[in-house]
Amino acid sequence: MSTVICMKKDYLYREISANMARLIREGVLQPGDKLPSVRDICTEHGVSMNTAKRVFLELERDALVEAKPQSGYYVNRLPFRKLQIPETSHPSPLNSHSRPSHLIAKVYGDMGNQGLTLFSIGAPAKELLPVAKLNKAILQATRDLPGSGTGYEPLAGNERLRRAIAKRSFHWGGYLTENDIISTAGGMNAIAFCLMATTRRGDTLAVESPIYPGILQLAVSLGLKVLELPTHPQTGVHPTNLEKVIHQIHCCLLVTNFNTPLGSCMPDEHKRAIVKLITRHRIPLIEDDIYGDLYFGNNRPLCCKAYDNKGWVLWCSSASKTLAPGYRVGWVAPGRFREKVLQLKHMHAISSTAITQEAIAAFMDSGRYDQHLRQMRQTLHSNYLQYMHTIASHFPAGTQTSQPQGGLSLWVAFDKHLSAAELYEHALRQKISIAPGRMFTLQPQFNHCMRLSLGMAWTKQLEQRLQLLGKIAAGMM
Amino acid sequence: MSTVICMKKDYLYREISANMARLIREGVLQPGDKLPSVRDICTEHGVSMNTAKRVFLELERDALVEAKPQSGYYVNRLPFRKLQIPETSHPSPLNSHSRPSHLIAKVYGDMGNQGLTLFSIGAPAKELLPVAKLNKAILQATRDLPGSGTGYEPLAGNERLRRAIAKRSFHWGGYLTENDIISTAGGMNAIAFCLMATTRRGDTLAVESPIYPGILQLAVSLGLKVLELPTHPQTGVHPTNLEKVIHQIHCCLLVTNFNTPLGSCMPDEHKRAIVKLITRHRIPLIEDDIYGDLYFGNNRPLCCKAYDNKGWVLWCSSASKTLAPGYRVGWVAPGRFREKVLQLKHMHAISSTAITQEAIAAFMDSGRYDQHLRQMRQTLHSNYLQYMHTIASHFPAGTQTSQPQGGLSLWVAFDKHLSAAELYEHALRQKISIAPGRMFTLQPQFNHCMRLSLGMAWTKQLEQRLQLLGKIAAGMM
Repeated sequence: MSTVICMKKDYLYREISANMARLIREGVLQPGDKLPSVRDICTEHGVSMNTAKRVFLELERDALVEAKPQSGYYVNRLPFRKLQIPETSHPSPLNSHSRPSHLIAKVYGDMGNQGLTLFSIGAPAKELLPVAKLNKAILQATRDLPGSGTGYEPLAGNERLRRAIAKRSFHWGGYLTENDIISTAGGMNAIAFCLMATTRRGDTLAVESPIYPGILQLAVSLGLKVLELPTHPQTGVHPTNLEKVIHQIHCCLLVTNFNTPLGSCMPDEHKRAIVKLITRHRIPLIEDDIYGDLYFGNNRPLCCKAYDNKGWVLWCSSASKTLAPGYRVGWVAPGRFREKVLQLKHMHAISSTAITQEAIAAFMDSGRYDQHLRQMRQTLHSNYLQYMHTIASHFPAGTQTSQPQGGLSLWVAFDKHLSAAELYEHALRQKISIAPGRMFTLQPQFNHCMRLSLGMAWTKQLEQRLQLLGKIAAGMM
Repeated sequence: MSTVICMKKDYLYREISANMARLIREGVLQPGDKLPSVRDICTEHGVSMNTAKRVFLELERDALVEAKPQSGYYVNRLPFRKLQIPETSHPSPLNSHSRPSHLIAKVYGDMGNQGLTLFSIGAPAKELLPVAKLNKAILQATRDLPGSGTGYEPLAGNERLRRAIAKRSFHWGGYLTENDIISTAGGMNAIAFCLMATTRRGDTLAVESPIYPGILQLAVSLGLKVLELPTHPQTGVHPTNLEKVIHQIHCCLLVTNFNTPLGSCMPDEHKRAIVKLITRHRIPLIEDDIYGDLYFGNNRPLCCKAYDNKGWVLWCSSASKTLAPGYRVGWVAPGRFREKVLQLKHMHAISSTAITQEAIAAFMDSGRYDQHLRQMRQTLHSNYLQYMHTIASHFPAGTQTSQPQGGLSLWVAFDKHLSAAELYEHALRQKISIAPGRMFTLQPQFNHCMRLSLGMAWTKQLEQRLQLLGKIAAGMM
C-alpha cells in the first residue's frame, strides 16, 4: 500500500514540474518571470510542502529555474537562447566518396588512451546505466533459460525479447507482433543485414548528412554509392528533398528520431509523406530508431514504421543506447524483407547470444525499464541544458549548435575558418577528445563542426573540461 | 594433499587404459584375445585393485573389451570392423550451383517439432556441456568486468579471452599472441568476416565436399563460385587435388580437423604441403578448426596455421562445439588480413558481447576446461563406438561409414539406390530427424548419404532409436 502512495506522490511532483517546464520551454513563462511560491503550489495542487519543494528542485536541476534567496524561484535567463541553429546541410547531389578514414582511425584509436574526457564517445557512460539491476537480470536469465542459455535458440531470436519489443512498439504506433521482429547482435548488425537484404553492389543509398560514420563505412564496403541528402538540424530530411532524387536511389536509410550527430527529429507529417513516397516507388527505407526512447519532451516520437502498410520500412533499434552497449542486443522488424534478413542472420551468425537477450527482455517486461528511461531522459535533458549554458558562456561568439529534443549528441558549428580537425589535436593535448564534423560525411564539408556526447554524468569537472574546450577553440580564432 | 593423490590415481588408470586402447585399435591385441587379469595389472603397474578395475571399466565403456563371467576380459569382436569407408568424393570440377535450399529449409524447419530424436543436429546436447560451471563463470564475469560488461569493449575483443586462446594455441603449434586474435559472435561470424575480407563477388572458393551447408549458403550469398574438391573420408583434401585447381581459385576454406559431416582429419604432411602451396600462390586459406579439440586419440592434431609463416592462413574457431553454442563466442587469427577483419567487425558488429566472452575466458583459464574436454572427448569417442556397433548390427548390409577420429559427426553412405531424402521422410514419421547428404553439397551427389550427430548422451532409448533408423532404411531397400 505504501508503495502505491509513494508512486502516486512521485508521479504528482513530476507531473507538476513537467507542466511548468513546458510553459517555460514554450515561452508562456518568460526568462526572469517570478514563479508561484512553494506554498502556492501546495494550495493549488493539494500537495505537501515536500512534494512542492521537489517540483522546484527538479526544475532547478534542469537549469530551467533559479532560486533567489529571500525572494523565491525565477525562470532562468537561459543564455543559450542566443545560440543559433546551423543551417540545413548542402551536400553535393552525388559525390566521389572522399572517405575520412584517416581521421576516423585516429579518433577511435586515441579513445583508448587513459584519462581522456570522451566528448567524442557515442554511447552512454556506465553512470547512466542500471548496472546492478541488469546484473540481477543476467543471473535470472541463467536460471530461466533452457540449458541456462548454452544452447542455440530459434533463428528469429529470444521470444520473450521479441514480445517485449512488440509490446513497446505500441508507444510509437508500431503495433508489431513478435513474429515481425528478428533479434541481432546490436543495432549496426541489424543495419548491416538490412543493407545486405535490400541492395546490391553499385546501388545508390540515400542518407542524412551529417550521419554516423559507421553507416557510411558499411555502405561503401558493400559497394554502394552514397547520396547524402540536405538535412535540417531540427527536422532532418525534408520529403521534397528525398522526392527530388527518388529515381536515382535504390534504398534509403534514415535515423528519424534524435539521430547522431544532429539530434534532429522528423515531424510526423514528414514521416508520413516519406513512407508514402518510398512505398509508391518501392524503395526500401531502413529506419534506425536507436534513440527514439530518449526524448526530452513529454511524448515519444512516432516512427516511419507506424505509417508502413506495405512492408517497405525495415525498422531497426537496440538496447545499446538505453541499457547496455556491451550486451550487443539489437533487433529489426524488416517488413517484406523478413525472409531475406532471416537467411542472412542464419548465414552470418547462426543465432544470437541467449543470456543477454533474455536479461534485456526481463528488464523490459518489468516496470524497471520505464523507470530507468524516465531517469535517463531527465539526466540527458539536464545535461543538454548544462552544455548549452556552458557553450553560450565559454565558446567563441558566433558558435552555433543544434537544439536536439532527445538523444545523446549535440552538434556544434564554429566559424567557417576554424578547423575542427586542428581543434581535435589541440584539445587532445589537454586530454579532451571530440568528434570532428568531417567524420560524419563522405564529402569535403563540416570541417568547422564537431559532435559532443551528452551521455556522461554532469559534474563540476566535466563542466570545467567543456569550458576549457571552449577556451581552446576561442584561442584558435 | 588428498586432491593431488586423487589426481595422480586418476591419471594413472587413464594412462593404462589409453595404452591398452591403442594396442587394441592398432591391432596388436586382436578381437577375442584374452587380456591380463585385474591382479596382473596391479602387479605390473603397482596400482591398487580399484585402479586396475577402473582401467577395465573404462575400456568396457568404450566398447573395446567385454567381460566373460568367471573368465576375465577379452578384446571385443568389434563387429563394425566390417563396415567399409566410403570412397573419396568426386564432385564436378566446376558446377552450376544446384542449391539444396528446399531440403535445408525443411530439415531445419522440422527440427523445432517436439519430441524428435535429433540425429540431424550439429551441436553438442546440453548433457555434454558444463552448464553449472559456466553459470558460475557468467556470474563472476558480471563482477569482474568494468561496468559489469555493459559497456563497449575494445574492437579486437576481450583481452583475457584472446590471451587464453593464444595460450592454448601452443597445443597445436600455433604460438599465437593475443594481438593475433580477434573475437567474433561465434565461428560462422568469423568465417563470414574472413570470406568478406579475402574475396570479391565472382571469385572462386575451393572447399571440401561434402561440407557444412552454412558455408555453401554464405559463399553463394556473397556471390562466390564454389569449387568442391575431392575429399577422402579419413584424410580430407589431398594437396595434389588443391594444386590442380590452384590457378582457378581465389580463396580456399578447409575444416582441417574432424570436419562435419565426414569427420576427416588432414595428416600433418598434407597440412604442411597445402600451406606451402597456398603461400606460393598467395591464396588465402580460411581454416575452420572448431572441432580440433575433440580428438578421440591421445594428441590434439596440429593446424595449417602452425605452418603459416607468411600470414596467408586465417585460423577460425569457437566455443560453440565444446562449451556453449548459445554464448556466440568465436574468434579468428586472420594473419595478414587482420586490419580488414577488424574493419569488418567494426562495421558489422561494433564489438562483441562482453559477458559471455569473459565467462569463456575464465573457464579456459582455469583447469576446468581441460577436465571438461577430457570428459567430452571420452563421451564422444564412446558414442562413436556405440554408433558403429549399432550400425554394423542393425543397418542394411553394405552400409558404409566414415571412421572419424574426433568431432561430432558420422557420415553414413547407403546403397546408391536408397534416397536419404526419402529416408528422412520415413524416419520423421517415427519422430527421428536425420541430415540427408544432399544438404552438404551444391551438386547432385550424396543422395544416398546422411550425417548422424554424435553429440548426444548415449542411452538405451537413443540406441533403440538408432536401431529403428536402421530398420527403416533396411525396409526401403
